[in-house]
Amino acid sequence: MSGNIQQTGQVRKAPENFLDAQGVRAVFAEAGKGRRDFIRNAFAAAVAGTATSSALAQPRPAVGDGDPAILNLPAHSTGLGQPVVTDGYGKPSKYEANVQRRQSPGLTPTAQASVSFAPLQSLFGIVTPSGLHFERHHQGWWDIDPSKHRLMVNGMVKAPKVFTLDELMRLPSVSRFHFIECGANTGMEWGNVAVPTAQYTHGMLSCSEFTGVPLITLLEMAGADLKGERFVLAEGADGSSMTRTIPMSLIRSGEVLVAYGQNGEMLRPEQGYPLRLVVPGVQGVSWVKYLRRIELGDQPYGTKDENVHYVDLMPDGQHRQYTSIQECKSVVTTPSGGQMLLDKGFYNITGLAWSGRGKVKRVDVSVDGGRNWRTARLESPVLSKCLTRFNIDWVWDGTPAIIQSRAMDDTGYVQPSYKQLRAVRGTRSIYHNNAIQSWQVQANGEVANVQLS
Amino acid sequence: MSGNIQQTGQVRKAPENFLDAQGVRAVFAEAGKGRRDFIRNAFAAAVAGTATSSALAQPRPAVGDGDPAILNLPAHSTGLGQPVVTDGYGKPSKYEANVQRRQSPGLTPTAQASVSFAPLQSLFGIVTPSGLHFERHHQGWWDIDPSKHRLMVNGMVKAPKVFTLDELMRLPSVSRFHFIECGANTGMEWGNVAVPTAQYTHGMLSCSEFTGVPLITLLEMAGADLKGERFVLAEGADGSSMTRTIPMSLIRSGEVLVAYGQNGEMLRPEQGYPLRLVVPGVQGVSWVKYLRRIELGDQPYGTKDENVHYVDLMPDGQHRQYTSIQECKSVVTTPSGGQMLLDKGFYNITGLAWSGRGKVKRVDVSVDGGRNWRTARLESPVLSKCLTRFNIDWVWDGTPAIIQSRAMDDTGYVQPSYKQLRAVRGTRSIYHNNAIQSWQVQANGEVANVQLS
Repeated sequence: MSGNIQQTGQVRKAPENFLDAQGVRAVFAEAGKGRRDFIRNAFAAAVAGTATSSALAQPRPAVGDGDPAILNLPAHSTGLGQPVVTDGYGKPSKYEANVQRRQSPGLTPTAQASVSFAPLQSLFGIVTPSGLHFERHHQGWWDIDPSKHRLMVNGMVKAPKVFTLDELMRLPSVSRFHFIECGANTGMEWGNVAVPTAQYTHGMLSCSEFTGVPLITLLEMAGADLKGERFVLAEGADGSSMTRTIPMSLIRSGEVLVAYGQNGEMLRPEQGYPLRLVVPGVQGVSWVKYLRRIELGDQPYGTKDENVHYVDLMPDGQHRQYTSIQECKSVVTTPSGGQMLLDKGFYNITGLAWSGRGKVKRVDVSVDGGRNWRTARLESPVLSKCLTRFNIDWVWDGTPAIIQSRAMDDTGYVQPSYKQLRAVRGTRSIYHNNAIQSWQVQANGEVANVQLS
Repeated sequence: MSGNIQQTGQVRKAPENFLDAQGVRAVFAEAGKGRRDFIRNAFAAAVAGTATSSALAQPRPAVGDGDPAILNLPAHSTGLGQPVVTDGYGKPSKYEANVQRRQSPGLTPTAQASVSFAPLQSLFGIVTPSGLHFERHHQGWWDIDPSKHRLMVNGMVKAPKVFTLDELMRLPSVSRFHFIECGANTGMEWGNVAVPTAQYTHGMLSCSEFTGVPLITLLEMAGADLKGERFVLAEGADGSSMTRTIPMSLIRSGEVLVAYGQNGEMLRPEQGYPLRLVVPGVQGVSWVKYLRRIELGDQPYGTKDENVHYVDLMPDGQHRQYTSIQECKSVVTTPSGGQMLLDKGFYNITGLAWSGRGKVKRVDVSVDGGRNWRTARLESPVLSKCLTRFNIDWVWDGTPAIIQSRAMDDTGYVQPSYKQLRAVRGTRSIYHNNAIQSWQVQANGEVANVQLS
């Protein structure tokens, strides 16, 4: 792997191990002939300085001697790069600037009581980068001074408490991975509105590692009276005065957290910094942000937010209330609406599955609109009330295809089709749509959102 | 939960459920007396507008009517907050600006061949935020155009391949959580240099969810000749021409990845965007960034980077080579050097444990310099070759204490003391220090790095 190349009368070290586009073509051509020395020849071609205007050949700043023999090397292979800590907090590549959370134009009258959707079609694995976590604000977000923030625990407790952040962070701490999904996620699809992308159909969904104190610990410190039926009211400090009832059945298990940490660092301001309630499996509105108060009572509080909003309009005109657990659901994120397959051949179909009841047990994938199903591979870890990433291979033959995923959780519940869901729920709801999503791959490779009847 | 307060001759809606500092004091005082109506009184006090210059009371912009009854409410409880998507990619709170990765002054002559350390003492759980991931550059970092980047697979293969990013991202994909630790992490401690904080003692350590293609898949596609002893050379595209030998024993298991994804999004430029080798359990230098070439051979390559650097100077003056697996290790991150305990009482001791051989099986914690040990609680999930978060309770009595953690992995290996490590390795090494870390809590609450003989 070393050698010298004679060039323009000078003996120069060859830029080893690098191929420009001409070299790449040479590799393919020579490999096709089965020649064993193709690599050496390809390097020689690259070094000869005869590269065409190809993708790999690019102008390069002089690095001192203007050596024509290495003019085809990219700057990053010859120059000195950026120093460490140019920013004590790093950012994504400039080439990824298009990967953003986005507001749906016209969805809400104001941008303070609105939503931004996570770009699911561009994400990998199960962790949502905090910078791309979906947002749902009821009166805009704030960056609250944590030294001035307090959490009160009161109601049916013997010794009401008011905690500072410092006090909370000294208490027993747990860290857990959980998804959060807005109860209205995929809501537009009730009306058969073919929202174009997975970002807008399913993007009110994110997943993080949360760190905080179990709420049961705080209630016990306050001498909570836990005999008999009990409910907790959680209240936020922002102007929307968000209040939600949380049943003690979830709290007793220790899984409801008063969280200050998310994905390794403090919560982000848009996610309720410095304190947010984490209610695994339950719709996002109950994960009260800017949490300032916990009250223990003996019946559901029936607040405005839970009597008027996040209720399910049923076919008979009545509203279902307190249907807050997010049922088992999944979505294929690639290929998905707005993406394009450039040619036939092998593709990795990937997506996300989750259940507010526990772990995902199985995900089946169909490429023919639900006639045939194959079981996808689940990436580990598979965790309770957490996103699960699935992958399955597919060879596209270039003809139209309809791609679907169908998840099952460890209670045995199977994600319904739209036909099955509508038989129970009708068509006029906004919330809690967990039906199977269909993406149509057209013959030209374009992928579109379709709803099968 | 509703009521009216008579004030300055007007009937006004009370700002319910909010307490200023005076209210907080009232709650404590009244709760001490066991009175059942203390909350109502506390609210009344808060509303009366007599708050002192306390932590909770703060100036508030007018919200329209200049109502003196609600002047004590913080702006975020009365005003309209920030709209969604003010930035399509979010940032941490301004109050967390001090949580940064940091360069150690004077550690290296240039900032292009240097290190920034992750702020372990400020992090939670196991996921390292990508913006705080430690950096180690050998010739600076680059933001490489992914459309122009190529990966070649050559050497002892029947059909050498050159892949574009698009081609790699169509292949079977896996997502896994793994730690990455620089082989030189905790290196200063060999010389008994009491580096002040966990950031500088152990901060060349991070953990992410990586997504990519198993390297074995690419080798199989290229028709790799895998009979007999085989090694892979991995080569980076930056100016340092980093080259490392990877044994096939790790690759055959499928765990070595050609990764493009990290924590849900594309790799960051400082971490090798658009392609990095992920070699679970192995020191970070082998996780070649800006990966451009994989060569299959039949013996270790013995490159400069592995013959001169990252070798262990032993007591007899010889160097140990290819000791690349990061042995079982742990560190308490809170309380740790540079932090301060403000008073006696309950604290949550927390830290990280990891092993390049597999899963962490147990972590024991001592608060008396190793005389007595208690077993800490491990947060789930506990994953192979991944950070594991541990927590344990502690009641500090205000006297000096020495806090240590000792990890054991599922091979039965136990993290050594400095005495045990030095008996084998001497004192002159730089790399692969996995000894037990000691933090001394002084009587005034200050925490310092100490090394027990």
